[in-house]
Amino acid sequence: MTSVDPADLLIVGGGPAGVDAALAGAALGLQTVLVEAAELGGTCLNRGCIPTKVLLGATDAADELAAQSRLKLAEGRIIFSLAALQTRKDRLVSGSRTALAATLAKAGVRVDAGRVTRISPGSARVDTPKGPHSVPYRFCILATGSRPAVYPSMAPDGRAVLDSTALLGLTQVPESLIIVGAGAIGLEFADIFHRLGAKIVLLDGAERIAPAEDPDVSKVLTQTLTRKGCVVRAGVRVKKLATVDGHAVLTLDTGEDIHAEKALVAVGRFPNSDIPGLADLGVRFLGDGPSRAWIDVNDHLLAAPNIYAVGDVNGRTLLAHAASHQACYAVRHAAGKTAAPYEPGAIPGCIYGNPETLRVGRLSRELAAHGLEPEVSEVQLAANPMAQAHAATAGFVRVTWLDGRVAGVTAVGRGVAAMGTLATLLVNQGFTRDDAEHLIFPHPGLDESLRAALLAGRKKG
Amino acid sequence: MTSVDPADLLIVGGGPAGVDAALAGAALGLQTVLVEAAELGGTCLNRGCIPTKVLLGATDAADELAAQSRLKLAEGRIIFSLAALQTRKDRLVSGSRTALAATLAKAGVRVDAGRVTRISPGSARVDTPKGPHSVPYRFCILATGSRPAVYPSMAPDGRAVLDSTALLGLTQVPESLIIVGAGAIGLEFADIFHRLGAKIVLLDGAERIAPAEDPDVSKVLTQTLTRKGCVVRAGVRVKKLATVDGHAVLTLDTGEDIHAEKALVAVGRFPNSDIPGLADLGVRFLGDGPSRAWIDVNDHLLAAPNIYAVGDVNGRTLLAHAASHQACYAVRHAAGKTAAPYEPGAIPGCIYGNPETLRVGRLSRELAAHGLEPEVSEVQLAANPMAQAHAATAGFVRVTWLDGRVAGVTAVGRGVAAMGTLATLLVNQGFTRDDAEHLIFPHPGLDESLRAALLAGRKKG
Repeated sequence: MTSVDPADLLIVGGGPAGVDAALAGAALGLQTVLVEAAELGGTCLNRGCIPTKVLLGATDAADELAAQSRLKLAEGRIIFSLAALQTRKDRLVSGSRTALAATLAKAGVRVDAGRVTRISPGSARVDTPKGPHSVPYRFCILATGSRPAVYPSMAPDGRAVLDSTALLGLTQVPESLIIVGAGAIGLEFADIFHRLGAKIVLLDGAERIAPAEDPDVSKVLTQTLTRKGCVVRAGVRVKKLATVDGHAVLTLDTGEDIHAEKALVAVGRFPNSDIPGLADLGVRFLGDGPSRAWIDVNDHLLAAPNIYAVGDVNGRTLLAHAASHQACYAVRHAAGKTAAPYEPGAIPGCIYGNPETLRVGRLSRELAAHGLEPEVSEVQLAANPMAQAHAATAGFVRVTWLDGRVAGVTAVGRGVAAMGTLATLLVNQGFTRDDAEHLIFPHPGLDESLRAALLAGRKKG
Repeated sequence: MTSVDPADLLIVGGGPAGVDAALAGAALGLQTVLVEAAELGGTCLNRGCIPTKVLLGATDAADELAAQSRLKLAEGRIIFSLAALQTRKDRLVSGSRTALAATLAKAGVRVDAGRVTRISPGSARVDTPKGPHSVPYRFCILATGSRPAVYPSMAPDGRAVLDSTALLGLTQVPESLIIVGAGAIGLEFADIFHRLGAKIVLLDGAERIAPAEDPDVSKVLTQTLTRKGCVVRAGVRVKKLATVDGHAVLTLDTGEDIHAEKALVAVGRFPNSDIPGLADLGVRFLGDGPSRAWIDVNDHLLAAPNIYAVGDVNGRTLLAHAASHQACYAVRHAAGKTAAPYEPGAIPGCIYGNPETLRVGRLSRELAAHGLEPEVSEVQLAANPMAQAHAATAGFVRVTWLDGRVAGVTAVGRGVAAMGTLATLLVNQGFTRDDAEHLIFPHPGLDESLRAALLAGRKKG
């Protein structure tokens, strides 16, 4: 096996974390090698955040028209070509991949198209189409991401039972679609395919949809989806989901059958941590079983000496922007630019579609569970002129306070994700009511509802 | 003439500034009287920001559909009922007025429906439908706002030549619409009536549309409007605009005639400063002629001892949020809560529609004109996934830097106004590149283009 030029920094995985780590490493003058087995951009660009946002953005007209039509302000009909949308989406994604490759090349990052098949101290084996080679390294960053979780009772079969990747390849809108799992992925696909004309049945085993969010957020999501005509069922147990005679048949533990043309399984993610050699390096895993083994990292995101694990694979926060942020920290730590523990500050989390959700910082119940005494203040979106204009007045903005400072922001409603960075800054800086009062918000704006929530009376959270 | 209970705080004008001053005064325990001759909410709520945003929001579907149709991703047709839209708009506006009245009443503010016909030291005469009365006061805040500018050569006549108020009352879409004046008002109406199906001719005497913005912003606006099918003509001189045979006929100084079913005159604003008694109080005016006499104020927004002038009428910044901010300062100053000069920090300014514009802080050419050495960094929106999704990739985000700190943000493109508060905060705090790098922006988001601009290479501005 040949040995190639040694790397100061070997990065395994070319998703958002891997790419940003590589660019950060190159910017610091490190010899940087990025190994990616499939496509640059990872899940986020190729099969996740970006393709779903393209489809949501492109179908926004249908949602806006439906809202105005309900008020009898407009009438009309929009027919989307899903085949054309998919072509457009694929073109945008491939354009972004090309741009990533060019950016990496310009920065001096070497990209090895291959798979790391063994990690040893100070060197890794990379299998490429041209054969294996060995890459000596000083520091290694594992950024291998995650993949859709698969359970035998509802394994995607590529026929009527699909994972999100397969659903992103459909060129004909199914007449009906069962979605199992009402987290971010399930909710976004529900909205996309509803807009395209499919009948939606959205199921979750938890007692409410979007179970990671505030219960009141789940309530608004349920009401809005139901009013749009989607069937929403929480607290159900799936016994089996399979293709029968070309259609999806889902059987609940009650014996009830639900039929649809297609079904999407979106029941969480498993880490891509099965890289031979990790255990010998002293890497430890969290979770139950090899397919759910998240890489354990310390306060410096180190999984073993000189080996960092960042992004989904460490299981901390399954969000692209969190992964990138961890990656850049790991590079700075490896380069000796920081010795401090990793402290990301507040990490915004959003679900897209209409309505959107936003959560950043702490929910009041989380703080109360730690024996603290949070306060909350909130406003409904109904009074906001932008929400009124779009006939999308369901939702609210809630601020959690601790000791007179903003500790968290939770919101649900049309367009609330766009407040995410502002809310993150308010939490990071521990904004006070006075700070909020002195800041000028442009009028009229949806984020004036955040301002109103900041200035509203508080009650015990 | 009867004399009523004395007021600690007399506020003249019930627009955004007047209402917010009244609420701030009542919150500080001041006996507060608000005098409004017409409708609570002023121009902003009744004839300005809010009605236009309602119409823009409600017609968004048409714009989104057009964008996707150009890419052949969708086809369809949307017919709006302008009569129904106007009814909806009127209902929302009147609901907000009712809510304002209730909020003021709950706060203990007395609202006098009448007109201040004389201001003297320590007392004002108010003419009401029930007759005149006199209101003794300790402090007075003039918040009388502004009105559409009128010039004899193009005076609205309520037939084919309209001001923005009359245009907001139309219940049938004109086949064609001439718009004179391509500032915020003209641009927003151009977009609204284009979406509703009118042929638009947009004219401005300045050498470019949106002349207060960065020239590159004007360029994107011109290109986008032109691509949509609007006729845009800058640098033209209007000799006469009048109704002829029921239609609008505009004659340029070159002799060329332009015909349309209707015309909108949106050529600036005049202050409502013609309140008898002001000159005797020592109030001074800026501007040329009584119809253009802006009230001069000092660093504490005082026009005379104990008399403040805030909002449009002082001519500083003709924006509702700036007016409210000034109003709240004036109340704090009157109440002795602050003695510092009024320093608002950065004031965001936006034009709505598609594309939107955002400007906050300083443009590089303004700084350069003061002998400073700004830098600029920028990105085009074309690479942003949200812009791509909405097929709205024209535009950019530009950051102006001074001494390594953010001094201004300028942007144009679909949805950029929603970055306004964040950009204001960055300017107020003088964000550095490092600050930006550590802040987590949710991915994907339009404001990642602001992040990219903050992190991009800089050049001399």
